[in-house]
Amino acid sequence: MEITSLHDIVLNKSQNLQQQLYRQIVAKIITGELAPSMRLPSSRRLADELSISRNTVIKTIEQLCDEGYTTSLRGSGVYIHDKLNHQQLTRHRHKPAQVFALPKLSNKIAQLNSLKRDDNKNLPFSPGLTAIDQFPFAIWQQLLKHHASRKLLYGYNEIKGYLPLRQSLVNYLAHSRGVKCDAEQVIITQGVQHGINLCAQALLNPGDRVIVEEPGYISAKRVFESYQTEISTVQLAQQSIDVDQLNQPKYRDAKLLYSTPTHQYPMGGILSADQRLALLAWAAENKTWLLEDDYDSEFNFCQKPVAAIQGLSDTAPVIYLGSFSKTLFPSIRLGYLVVPKAVSQHFSYLKGVSCGESPLVEQAVLAEFIDEGHFTRHIRRMRKHYHEKWQHLQQQLKQLPNNCQTVAYSAGMHLVLKISGIDEHHLCQFLLNYGYAPSALSDYYYNSDKQTGLVLGFANTNGEQREHIVELINQYLKQQQS
Amino acid sequence: MEITSLHDIVLNKSQNLQQQLYRQIVAKIITGELAPSMRLPSSRRLADELSISRNTVIKTIEQLCDEGYTTSLRGSGVYIHDKLNHQQLTRHRHKPAQVFALPKLSNKIAQLNSLKRDDNKNLPFSPGLTAIDQFPFAIWQQLLKHHASRKLLYGYNEIKGYLPLRQSLVNYLAHSRGVKCDAEQVIITQGVQHGINLCAQALLNPGDRVIVEEPGYISAKRVFESYQTEISTVQLAQQSIDVDQLNQPKYRDAKLLYSTPTHQYPMGGILSADQRLALLAWAAENKTWLLEDDYDSEFNFCQKPVAAIQGLSDTAPVIYLGSFSKTLFPSIRLGYLVVPKAVSQHFSYLKGVSCGESPLVEQAVLAEFIDEGHFTRHIRRMRKHYHEKWQHLQQQLKQLPNNCQTVAYSAGMHLVLKISGIDEHHLCQFLLNYGYAPSALSDYYYNSDKQTGLVLGFANTNGEQREHIVELINQYLKQQQS
Repeated sequence: MEITSLHDIVLNKSQNLQQQLYRQIVAKIITGELAPSMRLPSSRRLADELSISRNTVIKTIEQLCDEGYTTSLRGSGVYIHDKLNHQQLTRHRHKPAQVFALPKLSNKIAQLNSLKRDDNKNLPFSPGLTAIDQFPFAIWQQLLKHHASRKLLYGYNEIKGYLPLRQSLVNYLAHSRGVKCDAEQVIITQGVQHGINLCAQALLNPGDRVIVEEPGYISAKRVFESYQTEISTVQLAQQSIDVDQLNQPKYRDAKLLYSTPTHQYPMGGILSADQRLALLAWAAENKTWLLEDDYDSEFNFCQKPVAAIQGLSDTAPVIYLGSFSKTLFPSIRLGYLVVPKAVSQHFSYLKGVSCGESPLVEQAVLAEFIDEGHFTRHIRRMRKHYHEKWQHLQQQLKQLPNNCQTVAYSAGMHLVLKISGIDEHHLCQFLLNYGYAPSALSDYYYNSDKQTGLVLGFANTNGEQREHIVELINQYLKQQQS
Repeated sequence: MEITSLHDIVLNKSQNLQQQLYRQIVAKIITGELAPSMRLPSSRRLADELSISRNTVIKTIEQLCDEGYTTSLRGSGVYIHDKLNHQQLTRHRHKPAQVFALPKLSNKIAQLNSLKRDDNKNLPFSPGLTAIDQFPFAIWQQLLKHHASRKLLYGYNEIKGYLPLRQSLVNYLAHSRGVKCDAEQVIITQGVQHGINLCAQALLNPGDRVIVEEPGYISAKRVFESYQTEISTVQLAQQSIDVDQLNQPKYRDAKLLYSTPTHQYPMGGILSADQRLALLAWAAENKTWLLEDDYDSEFNFCQKPVAAIQGLSDTAPVIYLGSFSKTLFPSIRLGYLVVPKAVSQHFSYLKGVSCGESPLVEQAVLAEFIDEGHFTRHIRRMRKHYHEKWQHLQQQLKQLPNNCQTVAYSAGMHLVLKISGIDEHHLCQFLLNYGYAPSALSDYYYNSDKQTGLVLGFANTNGEQREHIVELINQYLKQQQS
């Protein structure tokens, strides 16, 4: 049977014509409008009818023949291929593409709630945003230029990460954080979120109990939720985890405890030495993995950072977690885990299977940045820089009414402002209208006794903005009262 | 009680003294050798005894006091802190650090077997290694220099990936692979392994059935194993997936089918048009997700690459998977998923929770590399380059005895050589002694009718090496016969 015309094909002349023609003919084959053994119009006729070049038609038909949709018989023309599976096609035709229902997603993904909107994360007062303008770009770019010219860095490398970077980290972490490890124990990650996810994959089965701090790092909780674990919260005492509570029977079966002992997130407390020892003893006794997130302890200026729990014992069930997003810049996407020797090969397999290697040139740049002392210098400079901003913001906040109270410990890159008796999400929305994106304090709580207020990331703000936001909060609170 | 001496402290003068001294004193506190209320020797005495500067001792003691391990009473000296929790310490002491047993790992991680040794992946004939020396380094470095100077690229960005890159991919994939999507459906990954892992997380529950090709991509199977799924294999017909087999009842409950229809890995077959339609119809009917891995179809030179299955229907349950490790260079660590619109937000949440954003500067470099036509030019050049290498290797392999047979379809970056009646792992070890790292063909099989032979990655080899390896194989086979 001859196909007399393909007049209903509509082509957009500003896009690739061959691709469009190909796709529309295949669609007609799928829906059965063009059936096996039908003959296509000649290329000349098709070109005329569609007002396109004959060459485009010929190329399209060649593609259809190459792929087996059509077959060309010398001297006779081009036919829809006989071999096309009639039965399958017919079945397909009865269920037009439009009504395909997708198969189900996993239970895991169904547990995820929406994340904070991407487009607010770069706004002033968004927690976690660094003072990007203070970064030593010139040095970084020079190192990048050098390492990008090393062809060796374009091949494969170790799954755990680039050895010189892992060695730099061993030295840096030993010196500045009291972490005791060798390079074999360091696993380079794509940031703290990836590190938590690797731990969840490596350590947790569905139904396992995980303990998180209340309030705490919300994105960590999301990871644990996605692994269908049971989540229990533990309250704070003096703005850091209340270790005494852990002796309650309900925590006994916990497989993992996620904690920020050196700078509680977001409240800022530092766990004291005796409580550190108590926490370690509890974890060892209880056979609970301790996931120690040391996310920005470098910037604590209320007190010298206390050495990490990881370094207190050679064989403690501690996994130490860090990232460069807060110390360097958010888009670097490099972090690390320090895991016990006995399980480091397991973590390496898991990383290999779940995401493969980390980008190599950036790892080499970072290694030299650390080794040459730029990293330590940058941190020292930023600690001073952030401290000044923090003091200024603290000062401003004193203008606020009595129902507002700053949490003194909270420092580093954000400041927690408790505000009683308000709808803080409404306040956040009000501030967003002015381009400011602090977080709502209650969002850091999992289920109990939520406090209201704001978490104000001040690292990437200037003096005017800090004065302005305090004015705005004042104005908002007055409006609410009246 | 006064501590009379700390003479058993041993310091390595070539390392940080303060850190060592701190750690050894804390260790003595943990083990109970130094108990609460004991007084430390004076800093002068300690410095003398240990032959280190008094300043180092003072700083160490300051750190211990800061962290609450010790307390300083004016005029009286420094004491181990009373507050240290006796009970916890005692419990801790009875379980010295050395005997802590680690908590268990997850069932997931226990399923992982070892991966191929990292240090062989850059050796000639290792499958998957590109011709790194052919990469247009100068262009890439120039783009990198430009984008690394854009401060905007150091902040946060979209979880799904940098929008201009996703848009570049939409255009490239439409034009070259017939993939039909918009930028919202593209999720940037850290390579193909990460893409498969995201799919497994998003689509699979433990116990779900997953179908893989036999032989097939071994690292994909490892991901599915790690999610505790049931794996079934499907055989090949004409070196690509045998779609007819899928009508067997045992495949009916499958939740996901992982396939390489456009260039079967490792055998190289191209699934014909009718079989593509049949596969799509089967997946839609059967409510099975089709994970279409289009890993290096750009380099197929036996036949023009057939358009992707993804583009055949607007609502097919297809997830399309690609990577730049094979088309650009292994260490780039960027790949992509194209997912149905209805689930793209779910994938974005999952990516946000499981690993966060992708590196931004590299994404911007890649976007411009594609938009400016460098990518297409590079692929065109490499297709020719690899074709020449493939023809040369094919020619060489003709010298081998009759039990050796090349798989004609296998092309692109590797060539499959079937060799009957040998211990191929022994042969691989023999070749490794000469610095060559082809893979054993049987390693690509999951459980049935394993064929023996070699998978020879030829992309990063030179003519001498190709001649040499064929000589070596010949020599090995002769030795085995005699």
